[in-house]
Amino acid sequence: MANPDIRFLVHGPAQKLAKLIERKKALAGRCEISDSAGVVSMQDKPSQVMRNGQGTSMWAAIEAVRNKEATVAVSCGNTGALMALSMIRLRKLPGVNRPAIAILWPSRNPQGFNVMLDVGADVRADAQDLVQYALMGVSYARNGLNLDRPRVGLLNVGTEEHKGRAELKEAHELISRMSDRAQFDFVGFVEGGDIPGKACDVIVTDGFTGNIALKTGEGTASLIGDRLKEAFAYSPLSRLASLLALTSLRRLKKKIDPRRVNGGVFLGLNGTVVKSHGAADETGVSAAIKLAFQLAQSGFSERLAARLAALTDAAPDIAEPKTKNEESPK
Amino acid sequence: MANPDIRFLVHGPAQKLAKLIERKKALAGRCEISDSAGVVSMQDKPSQVMRNGQGTSMWAAIEAVRNKEATVAVSCGNTGALMALSMIRLRKLPGVNRPAIAILWPSRNPQGFNVMLDVGADVRADAQDLVQYALMGVSYARNGLNLDRPRVGLLNVGTEEHKGRAELKEAHELISRMSDRAQFDFVGFVEGGDIPGKACDVIVTDGFTGNIALKTGEGTASLIGDRLKEAFAYSPLSRLASLLALTSLRRLKKKIDPRRVNGGVFLGLNGTVVKSHGAADETGVSAAIKLAFQLAQSGFSERLAARLAALTDAAPDIAEPKTKNEESPK
Repeated sequence: MANPDIRFLVHGPAQKLAKLIERKKALAGRCEISDSAGVVSMQDKPSQVMRNGQGTSMWAAIEAVRNKEATVAVSCGNTGALMALSMIRLRKLPGVNRPAIAILWPSRNPQGFNVMLDVGADVRADAQDLVQYALMGVSYARNGLNLDRPRVGLLNVGTEEHKGRAELKEAHELISRMSDRAQFDFVGFVEGGDIPGKACDVIVTDGFTGNIALKTGEGTASLIGDRLKEAFAYSPLSRLASLLALTSLRRLKKKIDPRRVNGGVFLGLNGTVVKSHGAADETGVSAAIKLAFQLAQSGFSERLAARLAALTDAAPDIAEPKTKNEESPK
Repeated sequence: MANPDIRFLVHGPAQKLAKLIERKKALAGRCEISDSAGVVSMQDKPSQVMRNGQGTSMWAAIEAVRNKEATVAVSCGNTGALMALSMIRLRKLPGVNRPAIAILWPSRNPQGFNVMLDVGADVRADAQDLVQYALMGVSYARNGLNLDRPRVGLLNVGTEEHKGRAELKEAHELISRMSDRAQFDFVGFVEGGDIPGKACDVIVTDGFTGNIALKTGEGTASLIGDRLKEAFAYSPLSRLASLLALTSLRRLKKKIDPRRVNGGVFLGLNGTVVKSHGAADETGVSAAIKLAFQLAQSGFSERLAARLAALTDAAPDIAEPKTKNEESPK
């Protein structure tokens, strides 16, 4: 709640929400409540929500972005339903076949994070979809990570050009041809180890593979974190050690805590939607809101639309309007 | 070199190898050198190695398994070439369409590890292949992890039955029908987070997805490990803390060190081949050899072949011969 420029339009049961908001003084005068009685549960099928979702808070939140009442929607709910509602209410950008969900991933790069997409909007992606993911990911890396000329990698099981599935070889060719016009560097195929690595800034993959990679990484980090706690709780000596190392361990946690990069961004729609992790705590939700605010402020949605339109129409001038972040080379 | 029952047939340039082996007293009288001048490099294409690989140490190592001179082959070399040579020289087991590479992954389960396959033998897998992976993974979990009745999960982007790709829905149905006869429990779809989790013991997936998941997990673990080192090197206080916590940290490392579970096993061939990580150090290679020895001793290759033959022919009695590991319920 540190940022005074954020205002909230909160969707849900008004009475309940009003009580909760009253309890936090920092929220006074910054929240407008929009009453909706219905709730989309985690078990609801996206197809059902698309048909019968009117009257739910999720529908109302998306609708507010559609009507320009809100600049960006944030939800911790059912991902499939949120994507389905976003698709039918916000509609896809011209030229986009499949929208994608992009996330930030802790990495060895100077900016500390990489962009990966798609992590689960769609289980399929053909070569053309992967090209669009590359373009959308580049736009996100410019606006979300302040990178002038992002380096794009295409996720595969080896870096040699003869490896992998047919659609990947085709996408390799297409993305490679696009890179000059769209002002990014294409590093070619990358592997799973490069997702937290420094070979590129944007990792392009289909939503099936990206979702598995994301959850494998999260699960591995969580297992190591728990084992670390056990190790430090083992003996009086190790408990003393953990006290001495407290500051260092907190610094470490800050660097690799997945809650701090919580928030998948839906790309390729007329409007920005940020999906927070369903199990997110206050740190996680706060990170998602911060991300939403940053994207709203940079006019990300409009810039992405302009970029895609320019590249799809093959217009002669395809450069995005420069912002102060982009003017000076890094 | 702790195990006196292991004997080595070492393939490569005889003079060079003899000098290296002489330097290690523990190896005296336990190594037989088989001279081969040729080497398969990491850059060689599998198709080329298949045509021109005769005379290389890799070819000779596979050939020794084929001729029953060796019980199992261990290699740190080019994975694609090793798989290609294993396929043409050892041949696939009857009824196996695609062989698979299985690995052990640190997990929250009591046995400390899960089996995942395929992690990269083939980028494709149809429903029938996934069923065979399940059967082979169950056999590996019995022999490699001493589990009586392994729990199998099919990797997907959600646990609901309507989710995922078509071949996964079909495989779900087929594996489910197979589980009683083949004496394993099928837990249904699992997600990336379950690979290091405790929902199942065997994770079944295609080689593309499995390879990406494996490398993402390794890369994430390695990033966290490096950040942990940085955190403890940060200040005099944190360096003191790391000294105090040394035993606990070593215990942690032992639990999650990927080198200690180094070794992908090729399944579905007439003979066992263990692929060690190309960048493995002595701890890693030693782990791969230990695994190879364990599998050789348990007669794994023959038991897997018998199991697949029984299930493929739909014989009335499909139980594997019981060993002492399997007699008493866990």
